Amino acid sequence: MSVTAAKGFTAAGIAAGIKDNGHPDLALVVNNGPRRAAAGVFTANRVKAAPVLWSEQVLKSGRVEAVVLNSGGANACTGPLGFQDTHATAEKAAEELGVSAAEIAVASTGLIGLRLPMDKLLPGVGAAAAALSPHGGEKAAIAIKTTDSVHKTAVAEGDGWTVGGMAKGAGMLAPGLATMLVVLTTDADVEAPGLDKALREATRSTFDRVDSDGCMSTNDTVLLLASGASGVLPGHEEFAETVAKVCDDLAQQLIRDAEGASKDIRIEVVNAASEDDAVEVGRSIARNNLLKCAIHGEDPNWGRVLSAIGTTSAAFEPDALNVAINDVWVCRNGSVGDDRDLVDMRYREVRITADLAAGNASAVVWTNDLTADYVHENSAYSS
Amino acid sequence: MSVTAAKGFTAAGIAAGIKDNGHPDLALVVNNGPRRAAAGVFTANRVKAAPVLWSEQVLKSGRVEAVVLNSGGANACTGPLGFQDTHATAEKAAEELGVSAAEIAVASTGLIGLRLPMDKLLPGVGAAAAALSPHGGEKAAIAIKTTDSVHKTAVAEGDGWTVGGMAKGAGMLAPGLATMLVVLTTDADVEAPGLDKALREATRSTFDRVDSDGCMSTNDTVLLLASGASGVLPGHEEFAETVAKVCDDLAQQLIRDAEGASKDIRIEVVNAASEDDAVEVGRSIARNNLLKCAIHGEDPNWGRVLSAIGTTSAAFEPDALNVAINDVWVCRNGSVGDDRDLVDMRYREVRITADLAAGNASAVVWTNDLTADYVHENSAYSS
Repeated sequence: MSVTAAKGFTAAGIAAGIKDNGHPDLALVVNNGPRRAAAGVFTANRVKAAPVLWSEQVLKSGRVEAVVLNSGGANACTGPLGFQDTHATAEKAAEELGVSAAEIAVASTGLIGLRLPMDKLLPGVGAAAAALSPHGGEKAAIAIKTTDSVHKTAVAEGDGWTVGGMAKGAGMLAPGLATMLVVLTTDADVEAPGLDKALREATRSTFDRVDSDGCMSTNDTVLLLASGASGVLPGHEEFAETVAKVCDDLAQQLIRDAEGASKDIRIEVVNAASEDDAVEVGRSIARNNLLKCAIHGEDPNWGRVLSAIGTTSAAFEPDALNVAINDVWVCRNGSVGDDRDLVDMRYREVRITADLAAGNASAVVWTNDLTADYVHENSAYSS
Repeated sequence: MSVTAAKGFTAAGIAAGIKDNGHPDLALVVNNGPRRAAAGVFTANRVKAAPVLWSEQVLKSGRVEAVVLNSGGANACTGPLGFQDTHATAEKAAEELGVSAAEIAVASTGLIGLRLPMDKLLPGVGAAAAALSPHGGEKAAIAIKTTDSVHKTAVAEGDGWTVGGMAKGAGMLAPGLATMLVVLTTDADVEAPGLDKALREATRSTFDRVDSDGCMSTNDTVLLLASGASGVLPGHEEFAETVAKVCDDLAQQLIRDAEGASKDIRIEVVNAASEDDAVEVGRSIARNNLLKCAIHGEDPNWGRVLSAIGTTSAAFEPDALNVAINDVWVCRNGSVGDDRDLVDMRYREVRITADLAAGNASAVVWTNDLTADYVHENSAYSS
């Protein structure tokens, strides 16, 4: 269902030859209106890929006609010539669709530091435009895969309107945003400011809290396009909740497909003095390599959780900290709690609960374990 | 030569039975004076082991008679009873040596969250006191090993005085300080404030810049004891340089013995606007798991260096960044530079130079690669 679940959108996914292996590598998503409102959230990395710099400008108008996405190359750290390549991609799509290049967003994913093969990419944009279909969402989702083992799509229904989307990402899931490209579409008749508010609220509690390996990408892009084709303008809260539902679904798919992982780790920080404290502590636990190794070894090593909490500036007293692993409170009052042998860690999902005993706020951060497969995949990636 | 290289010190290292495998696990270092001045630097982790809480208090007086160190258990996250165990350890040593427990520092290393076997440790303190020798430094260094493959000692000579030391640490080398226990001794006749100044200056540019896996320990302790037995009071600069030399030597030994590592990575950040910027960027590169995997795979993946720089708040323009790997400038002006195939990465030491083109400050941070062996060692550690 993907990006064509909502009315008013067509999409395509084709093999343009950007990837040497002949797999699909170019996607096009077109908003056929009547409205063409859009919002976007981008990587917080200060080293931004050319398509991010381009699309940030496009999104300032709150209007997007179409999105061109490619896998097989990130077009990051490619200098002024790389930016020209993104510009040329937008121009080509604009020409095919008979619209302005200033309303074409571009997103890229793949290796950093390599120019894109424009002799293949530009004809690919033409081929994708010719293949556009109201049933093309699935193919578009497939074309943006890199090391993803599966393509990722999600849909949620409102009252007479729909939000759908696709995502790509399988590693480098990190702060701010993960290395992911996400396009969400809706036929709800929402203007750009409403889209922006809903998207920021949704990403803040979903994609922003998926932290597979702590590494922030140069290319993260999350776009939300509205066609208005349903003719329905939902209330903000209802709309925002539905967008968040689709984001949450896609974020869960990302964490489950993280490179080389054998465990999905749900870290819930409770009784924090503030939500910021809860997120800071959650992230610190999520990024602790020693803990991630221990979880891989099915070792309920709560000492490493406390170590990670101790590096934060959150409000807490060391002697008041409690930690549960898979619901067994193995650490109570900063010291040994219930018998660690009671913790059953055979399953893929591991739940860590960190009780800061400092207030009423909470947050959930997801991460993965650290495995020899992760090392292997990321040692061999570019060679 | 270790902690008994300087005059006025005796030491011992024995097997007290704290470790199940019968290896040496208890060390005692005694300052026989005439002066008994001391300074200490401890972990910045807010979750501090009982011996750290104890020794921080002891060091406030600037006077230390002796240090008891044990491997085989960190005595961290052990609550009030764990603190009583540390207190009892100091009392026992004080009784053996005929001094006050308030002048006995204690340091522990090993697993978190387990009480120490005091029925073995306390008799061990007695046995160590009986074994004290002016040639005991080497044995003391051996007794503090945990996963260390070798024991670590260093010595530097001043004009008529000496600084010597021992260190333990092979993983969890991190911010602020690594998981390490370090005892430095000198027969220079320096009072506590002079020791404190020299030690802080030295750790700031040595141990503080060794960041093997980004995980901060609960137990890090670096102590500097002065006996004054040489009768020489060196100038501050000369003394501080010699202390820094011993710290640098030990820090290098720590990084070379990091758990499961196959590469030692020297990250030099140059042309930064400030030293703080240089250190922030160095640490961000040092902690990037994707880069650490790439280096393991002998892949000069400069894109991951730029990605890591981009997550910092340091002053730089993305288009002005330059990166060299083993002296080949593979990234120039934020984009593709010299041929990456020119980079020879077969050797254990890898040098990354990040040029921020923003000023005149610089800093060096050391880290290791991320390997399947690291994952294996840290998955299996407590089981």
